[in-house]
Amino acid sequence: MTALEENDTGTAGHTPAPSGSSLSPAAASAGRHLWMHFARMHGRDGANPVPVITKGEGMHLWDDRGRRVLDGLAGLFVVQAGHGRRELAEVVARQASELAYFPVWGYTTPPAAELAERLAHLAPGELNRVFFTSGGGEAVESAWKVAKQYFALRGRPAKHKVISRATAYHGTTHGAMAITGLPAMKKDFEPLAPGGFRVPNTNLYRHPEFDGDAEALGRWAADRIEEAILFEGADTVAAVVLEPVQNSGGCLTAPPSYFARVREICDRHDVLLVSDEVINAFGRHGYPFACTKFGFTPDIITCAKGMTSGYGPLGAMITTDEVIEPFLEPGVTFPHGYTWGGHPVSAAVALANLDLMEREDLYGNVLARADAFGATLRKLLDLPIVGDVRGDGYFWAVELVRDRHTRETFGAAERELLVKRFLPGALFDNGLYCRPDDRGDVVVQLAPPLIAGQAEFDEMEQILRHTLTEAATLLD
Amino acid sequence: MTALEENDTGTAGHTPAPSGSSLSPAAASAGRHLWMHFARMHGRDGANPVPVITKGEGMHLWDDRGRRVLDGLAGLFVVQAGHGRRELAEVVARQASELAYFPVWGYTTPPAAELAERLAHLAPGELNRVFFTSGGGEAVESAWKVAKQYFALRGRPAKHKVISRATAYHGTTHGAMAITGLPAMKKDFEPLAPGGFRVPNTNLYRHPEFDGDAEALGRWAADRIEEAILFEGADTVAAVVLEPVQNSGGCLTAPPSYFARVREICDRHDVLLVSDEVINAFGRHGYPFACTKFGFTPDIITCAKGMTSGYGPLGAMITTDEVIEPFLEPGVTFPHGYTWGGHPVSAAVALANLDLMEREDLYGNVLARADAFGATLRKLLDLPIVGDVRGDGYFWAVELVRDRHTRETFGAAERELLVKRFLPGALFDNGLYCRPDDRGDVVVQLAPPLIAGQAEFDEMEQILRHTLTEAATLLD
Repeated sequence: MTALEENDTGTAGHTPAPSGSSLSPAAASAGRHLWMHFARMHGRDGANPVPVITKGEGMHLWDDRGRRVLDGLAGLFVVQAGHGRRELAEVVARQASELAYFPVWGYTTPPAAELAERLAHLAPGELNRVFFTSGGGEAVESAWKVAKQYFALRGRPAKHKVISRATAYHGTTHGAMAITGLPAMKKDFEPLAPGGFRVPNTNLYRHPEFDGDAEALGRWAADRIEEAILFEGADTVAAVVLEPVQNSGGCLTAPPSYFARVREICDRHDVLLVSDEVINAFGRHGYPFACTKFGFTPDIITCAKGMTSGYGPLGAMITTDEVIEPFLEPGVTFPHGYTWGGHPVSAAVALANLDLMEREDLYGNVLARADAFGATLRKLLDLPIVGDVRGDGYFWAVELVRDRHTRETFGAAERELLVKRFLPGALFDNGLYCRPDDRGDVVVQLAPPLIAGQAEFDEMEQILRHTLTEAATLLD
Repeated sequence: MTALEENDTGTAGHTPAPSGSSLSPAAASAGRHLWMHFARMHGRDGANPVPVITKGEGMHLWDDRGRRVLDGLAGLFVVQAGHGRRELAEVVARQASELAYFPVWGYTTPPAAELAERLAHLAPGELNRVFFTSGGGEAVESAWKVAKQYFALRGRPAKHKVISRATAYHGTTHGAMAITGLPAMKKDFEPLAPGGFRVPNTNLYRHPEFDGDAEALGRWAADRIEEAILFEGADTVAAVVLEPVQNSGGCLTAPPSYFARVREICDRHDVLLVSDEVINAFGRHGYPFACTKFGFTPDIITCAKGMTSGYGPLGAMITTDEVIEPFLEPGVTFPHGYTWGGHPVSAAVALANLDLMEREDLYGNVLARADAFGATLRKLLDLPIVGDVRGDGYFWAVELVRDRHTRETFGAAERELLVKRFLPGALFDNGLYCRPDDRGDVVVQLAPPLIAGQAEFDEMEQILRHTLTEAATLLD
């Protein structure tokens, strides 16, 4: 248990790494100077060194100790095309030589213009207008701002509030955080931007009263959105923001009927529907945009991550012709922007990535294999610690429970042991990088690059089986 | 005047560009599908096409009509090393092949670790800890969040407010916007995150009562910060955020005594001092960080833009050992992060860019030539339309006035004519890309790549002289 005691970190490092002067230069520098994201920082210059990832190739990552692991998380829901793609690196170099940087502040560059058109063509319905951002959180911020100004321009400036779902993560800036449904992540930063209100999500496993009837849960959950709009007053509500498949809480799905009902409710109350596809878009569910799969057309899509497969930072907010219409009037400006939004190198590599994904039919690969991925992971349901396996496409969560019959979840001490101390390091040691998380209930999330096939599904299942079995013994 | 009538755009395009089917593919795509930042969108698919920048090399940019212009704004205060640097493009390609993406969420990559150490060494005092972001606005958001949690961890959770300066721009997300001092930019998006309060800036030209005494203005303006802290209650104030040289309003400088006094005030009231150097850092004022030049050591530096010279999107918040200390305790996490923060490719090219800037002594170039740059621009003071020329380093503003004797500024119609209709296109047509702006008073801003020398200063002055002379005739 020594490794556990030392690994109070929330990250890899189950096997004690060499400490002190035997640290790699990167681990030593990071321990003293890097402030990691969403991570405990205690002891990073000593007993709990920062894990260092040095190389990626296809489905695999290497660390600074020469260990190779399977990338079960595509970096962070990002690397759709896999690591080490030379053709994408070449595009990056070519654009960086030609024109590395110019803003879209009153101008464009050819890659930004071409990518805007490409995204418009990939998006459903009249989603024809693209506002670029640096990344996903800024896209959510932009969606909220555009919704506010859209209604102001239409003479309804009081419409400014946003409805979003419990446990959902939409970003960490003061606006995106106000839309995020994770109180523990927000409490030290209150007051956030006023106007964020929460409704239930569609966690079927945690709504046993619906007895597995996703349609019935969907009707109820959609009606709670209408209820929230009425509670606040439709004249004050600007938007509903939701992910087609909600990440935090663990890959929470809903049937098309849910989204259809939410769409109707938004239409009835003149509220914009925002599909936050920062994680869901670009093939994660077998389509360029996940709203297509679930059969609804939002007023705004937010996206980022997979657009470039991580080969360059980029995000976007895509809106309909109707939403931009009042902004096309003479003298009107949306006073909003980001220096890096639509970066030429990122835009160029996004185009190349979208080409690659079509040429290699990664969309088709996901559609063809998603059921097999789910079926492989569901084998884990024979482990007493596994309560639920859920998801869609290449985006799955394995929920861990104290008691599979009562669905009782873990207490604080057990969460600490599992999510912070044991699982990240143990999974990595056993050859798998993925995501143990307890923002909602305790889950392990799998979201590999979209090039993965049955061999990788089997490997993930085997490593999870071995590691979760060991985890269960720690809890006894 | 036909060109003026048609160019109701706020961007280049003084000479009517070919319209309709003769648009370049990029202009056509952008006109239909791109939502530009901070720009009017009217008529972009027709009479006012989107200007397209296609190529950069050294100090120059090319558009899709083959026109070459001098880059007087380094893209957007970004391209310190100049355009088309093959050695930086090669670094980008190499890192993209080796490991294009991995997050710093509980891990690091070698470039992120090395860059964190490098920034810590470049920053003054005990500013040894680096939290990476995608860009500048996210860095400001991070600074506010870290200040809030820092005081919460120290048992003072009510300390959450931020004091910033009138007219200052600190970003466009709901937290950064709350710190921004531009009411017109914010009004359609209220309510923003509560807690932002404004104090006067150090605009000597607009405080004639100080008769040119920058020290006296500095004492007064610093005391207004203390006044604001006392008005709000020091127990509720977390941070003062300021740029060493304020961008919006037009390159507003202050003497070291101002910053020393602000530093004392912050210390007296246990308030963190944040130096927002998104524009000012990385050589813009001849030093890696501008606070060094102005002789003060903040608790937090925010930076972005010039760190990579634009060859990759990146930002950072740098804090002291004292600020991170409570976060190093066991079990503590800063629940904050960004997918693209510390992107390996951006971090690698930042390191190469910092190497290049040292090797070519771009810092020394700025220090040696800044006075000559200012002196060259001050020749424009013989034009009746020019009221003031101010700035520091490679960061200057030419303020335009209706009456240079009374310092009377322009009314709305004249601003519209100058800033929105005439100047951007006319300057571009005459061979100069720079920034006419009226977020505060009407200014033209110059911030070229740091490789610029006297020949470029002269060229800028000549083009400005010609264009401003023409502008003056339009106002008669």
